[in-house]
Amino acid sequence: MKCTKCGGVAVINMPQHRLKLCAEHFKEWVLSMVQRTIKRYRMFGPKDRILVAVSGGKDSLSLWDILIRLGYQTEGLYINLGITHENYSDVSQEYAEAFAAAHDAPLHIVNVRETYGQGIPDLAHTGRGKRMCSVCGLVKRHIMNRIAYEGGYAAIATGHNLDDEVAVLLQNTLHWQGGYLKRQAPVLPSTHPRLARKVKPLCHLYERETAAYALVQGIAFVEQECPYSVNAKTIFYKQILNQLERRSPGTKMQFYLGFLRAKEEGLFCLDEPEKELTWNTCRKCGQPTTAGDLCAFCRLWEKQKHPA
Amino acid sequence: MKCTKCGGVAVINMPQHRLKLCAEHFKEWVLSMVQRTIKRYRMFGPKDRILVAVSGGKDSLSLWDILIRLGYQTEGLYINLGITHENYSDVSQEYAEAFAAAHDAPLHIVNVRETYGQGIPDLAHTGRGKRMCSVCGLVKRHIMNRIAYEGGYAAIATGHNLDDEVAVLLQNTLHWQGGYLKRQAPVLPSTHPRLARKVKPLCHLYERETAAYALVQGIAFVEQECPYSVNAKTIFYKQILNQLERRSPGTKMQFYLGFLRAKEEGLFCLDEPEKELTWNTCRKCGQPTTAGDLCAFCRLWEKQKHPA
Repeated sequence: MKCTKCGGVAVINMPQHRLKLCAEHFKEWVLSMVQRTIKRYRMFGPKDRILVAVSGGKDSLSLWDILIRLGYQTEGLYINLGITHENYSDVSQEYAEAFAAAHDAPLHIVNVRETYGQGIPDLAHTGRGKRMCSVCGLVKRHIMNRIAYEGGYAAIATGHNLDDEVAVLLQNTLHWQGGYLKRQAPVLPSTHPRLARKVKPLCHLYERETAAYALVQGIAFVEQECPYSVNAKTIFYKQILNQLERRSPGTKMQFYLGFLRAKEEGLFCLDEPEKELTWNTCRKCGQPTTAGDLCAFCRLWEKQKHPA
Repeated sequence: MKCTKCGGVAVINMPQHRLKLCAEHFKEWVLSMVQRTIKRYRMFGPKDRILVAVSGGKDSLSLWDILIRLGYQTEGLYINLGITHENYSDVSQEYAEAFAAAHDAPLHIVNVRETYGQGIPDLAHTGRGKRMCSVCGLVKRHIMNRIAYEGGYAAIATGHNLDDEVAVLLQNTLHWQGGYLKRQAPVLPSTHPRLARKVKPLCHLYERETAAYALVQGIAFVEQECPYSVNAKTIFYKQILNQLERRSPGTKMQFYLGFLRAKEEGLFCLDEPEKELTWNTCRKCGQPTTAGDLCAFCRLWEKQKHPA
């Protein structure tokens, strides 16, 4: 397999782009693809301070690496979720810390158990009905918003790749969740001064490409998946989408880009007046909330202290 | 496995409806399901004369059987496509004729080769670029419209089941074909007095249910698939959707019904003024066409006579 650009030994074949690239040209290609994505969706500029949410995995560490190489101002945020199964959270943290140290880049660490009293598995366990992944999402969003606000960052960048986005898109489409379909995008704008803008600079890269990038850049990352995600539906959807991709290379990319284009061209009706959000201030943490005087995050911990 | 209704031996399990039914209750359930579908989408009434497009397969013969049992006024239309591979078209015709004879029901037969000079495979072969399935679809639509107009039927009923509809829906969604998404529905209204209204009374039934219905009613049908459909993408999509269904029973039904509901509730933007169609009359066959003075069907045969 030869590199389309130089004829050298190719390390990756990307049929959806009709490209086979050697390690050097692949690194170059990834950087320019992410740069184009950042510009195309007006994610941020070189003067903005960006908080990169890192999990220790291939996507978020590749993202951080790419943003550093592109010259953006970044700091990392690692949230230790307190998942003790196979030492998952602590091992992941070590990878995040090692990356930060090697790149001399600032890394903020929030340890959920030390800060709030319990790790995610215990919290979800007493959360009565709330599933692990939704509790985990709620906690992460709260902490990301808090740190981004306290540190005055222009945006939070997450490592979501195209496979992540397209799995969510398939799920939202199979259930025709209009609200989610209308909102799903590479940039989630801020709806309140204390809630951060969120951007996904890797949203045009396939998962296998971010993995390949980490490998060729020699980035060490945690290879374990979250032990609670094994049966997650998104993993099943990813397998389904990979079958479609194998049959017709480019299906995943077209599904995602076609969706964004269709939205831009007005396929979905957005006439309904944007619901005016009524913001309250959480009496406990001070974050904005639309749900009474206690935000969903603080309610979760209250319930945990005073189970019904 | 016990019948949910009478405790007898169930012949089918329909987890998406939480129903297991014996042969008698299943027949009853299918009839009432189709009756509800016809009413829900206002397909036709007992005074309307309906042309049932039959292929000799399980879906269309089940449909005809059901409509007869429900007391609707039906006549059949069998289009012999001239597919000689494994004698496909002639064998299929025999099943259609046997059904019509057994039910003492009128059956119209149009033999494409005898009427127009060539069967579909030869026609598609010289059609330069047009694929078999699209040529076949064009020819069938033309003939169905002609017979429906000449006979003054209120509508053409086709045997499309939920699996057919949902495979097309997945295809249209993966490619975000807005126009198709806006049009896909259980009823395709007539856009011109000479173009028939088309209805799909089986659109709420899974393929395995129409097959089971044919079996328990003792309907003999051609089991061969069209020899040209073997690699058709819709078959691949059906397999994908069956994987989703196995993982979460009801997925196919929810995908389809959720889509229809979302459309009703205005998910898709239909603001754009309906394109005013400019109708011409085909100088050869007299059918309406939006494409000059020769309709697509007659153009196909012209090309065939005078290949460039």
